[in-house]
Amino acid sequence: MSVAPEPTTTAAEAAPTSGSTSYAPTERTVPTRSKERAAYDKDLVHAILDEAYVCHLGFVRDGAPVVLPTLYGRVGERLYVHGSTGSRPLRMAGQRDPGLAVCLTVTHVDGLVLARSAFHHSINYRSVVIHGTAHQVTDPQEKRLALDALVDHVVPGRSADSRPANAKELAATAVLSLDLAEVSAKLRTGGVNDEPEDLDLPHWAGVVPLQRGHGPLIPDADLADGIEVPAYLRNL
Amino acid sequence: MSVAPEPTTTAAEAAPTSGSTSYAPTERTVPTRSKERAAYDKDLVHAILDEAYVCHLGFVRDGAPVVLPTLYGRVGERLYVHGSTGSRPLRMAGQRDPGLAVCLTVTHVDGLVLARSAFHHSINYRSVVIHGTAHQVTDPQEKRLALDALVDHVVPGRSADSRPANAKELAATAVLSLDLAEVSAKLRTGGVNDEPEDLDLPHWAGVVPLQRGHGPLIPDADLADGIEVPAYLRNL
Repeated sequence: MSVAPEPTTTAAEAAPTSGSTSYAPTERTVPTRSKERAAYDKDLVHAILDEAYVCHLGFVRDGAPVVLPTLYGRVGERLYVHGSTGSRPLRMAGQRDPGLAVCLTVTHVDGLVLARSAFHHSINYRSVVIHGTAHQVTDPQEKRLALDALVDHVVPGRSADSRPANAKELAATAVLSLDLAEVSAKLRTGGVNDEPEDLDLPHWAGVVPLQRGHGPLIPDADLADGIEVPAYLRNL
Repeated sequence: MSVAPEPTTTAAEAAPTSGSTSYAPTERTVPTRSKERAAYDKDLVHAILDEAYVCHLGFVRDGAPVVLPTLYGRVGERLYVHGSTGSRPLRMAGQRDPGLAVCLTVTHVDGLVLARSAFHHSINYRSVVIHGTAHQVTDPQEKRLALDALVDHVVPGRSADSRPANAKELAATAVLSLDLAEVSAKLRTGGVNDEPEDLDLPHWAGVVPLQRGHGPLIPDADLADGIEVPAYLRNL
C-alpha cells in the first residue's frame, strides 16, 4: 500500500466495462501504478462497503482538504451519510447547488506483509474510493429510508427493532446522498514479493492475517427485565 | 459519530493549552458540537496514531478532494508517509513550495452503541485529525529514519530485522513529512444515551465492543530452514 492510486489515463482511454456489473473507469479511478490491484466490479465494491463500519469523507473547505470519519449506509447504488443540520459539510452541501464535491473512502486492513527487505513490506487490504457530488436529501421518505440504512449498516436488522426517529429528531438530522458512479476498488492479497536474491536472508517472512471480532455484549444498566439478546446480535 | 467536528471558534477564542503536553486548539480543530469529545493531549494523540495501521490522507486535486488510505510512521511530533516517486501527491508535494496542503485522519472503531431509539445509535471511536502541509523529505538520513519508522509502525522492532533499502530502492521511494501541530483527537466512549421516556421500550440496548486480533502466522513458502518466528511477532 502506498499513496496510490495514481490516475493518468483519460476516461476515453479507459477500458470499457459492461454497464450492469461494473463501474466505468474514469481518469480519476484508473491507477498508473499497481494497475492489477484496481477493480470495478459492483459486487466486490458493495461487499467492501457493507463490511466496514465507518468511511472517511473528504471535502474542501477554504481551499484545504478536510477528512472526517463518519457512519454511512448503502441503498443499492447510493450511499448516505448523516449529521447534525448544523454540521459544516451538511450545510455546505445544502447551500451549494449542485452539491458538495466529496471523496468517500473505505478501507479494510486484512494482513501485515513482512518481507525480508524493508522495501517490500506491505499490507493486504481492500479499499473503495468514490468520487462524486453529495446532495442533501430533502424528500422525507428518502430521508427515513436513509436513516434506516444507516442503522442497518451498523447491525443488519436493527432498524426494525428500535424506535424510529420522531419529527424533532428528523428535523435535527441532515442526510447527504452520494451516488456510486465514479468508483474503484483496490486490493492487495497474497504473500511477500521479495527479490530473488533476498530469499536466503536470515529474516522471517510471511503474512500476519488480521481479524475483526467482538467481545461480550454490554447490556445497558437500565435494560428492562425480560429483554433478551436479539437473534441479529447473536449471529454477528 | 457524525460528520463532525465542526469548527466555528477562532484560534484566539480557543482555550489556551500548556505547550508541552497538548496541542493548541485552532479554528479548524475546535468542534461546535460534542465539544466534550474533543481532546488535544499529545500522549492521547500519539497512542491513537501508534495503534492504527493506516491513515486516510486527503489532499486537493484540480479543486476536488481526494482521500487515499496509506501507511505511515511517527517520529516524535512528525508523521511520515511514503509512496512511489511517481505518485501524484508525492509529486505534488515536491513541485509545490511550500508543500501540499493535507488532512491526515486516523480512526479506531471500538464499539457499536445500540440505543432504543434509532436516533441515538452511535459508535464508540477514537480519531485523530491533523491539518497541515506535507513536504518532501530530501535529506537522505531523515529519509532512512522515516522508512524505518514506517516499517516499525506496522510491527515494532521489524526494521532492525530486515534488509534496509538499497540506493535503487531509496531513489524509487518518495517520503512526505507532516508535523503534528494543528491536531485534535475526538472520542466517544461509554454506553447508550437514550431519552428517559424511551427506557421502557422493548428493545435491547447496549454496546457491542469490537476487538482486533490476528490469525495464525502464514510463513513464506520459500522461508529458509531454521528461521524461527521472531520474538516481536510472538508478542503481537
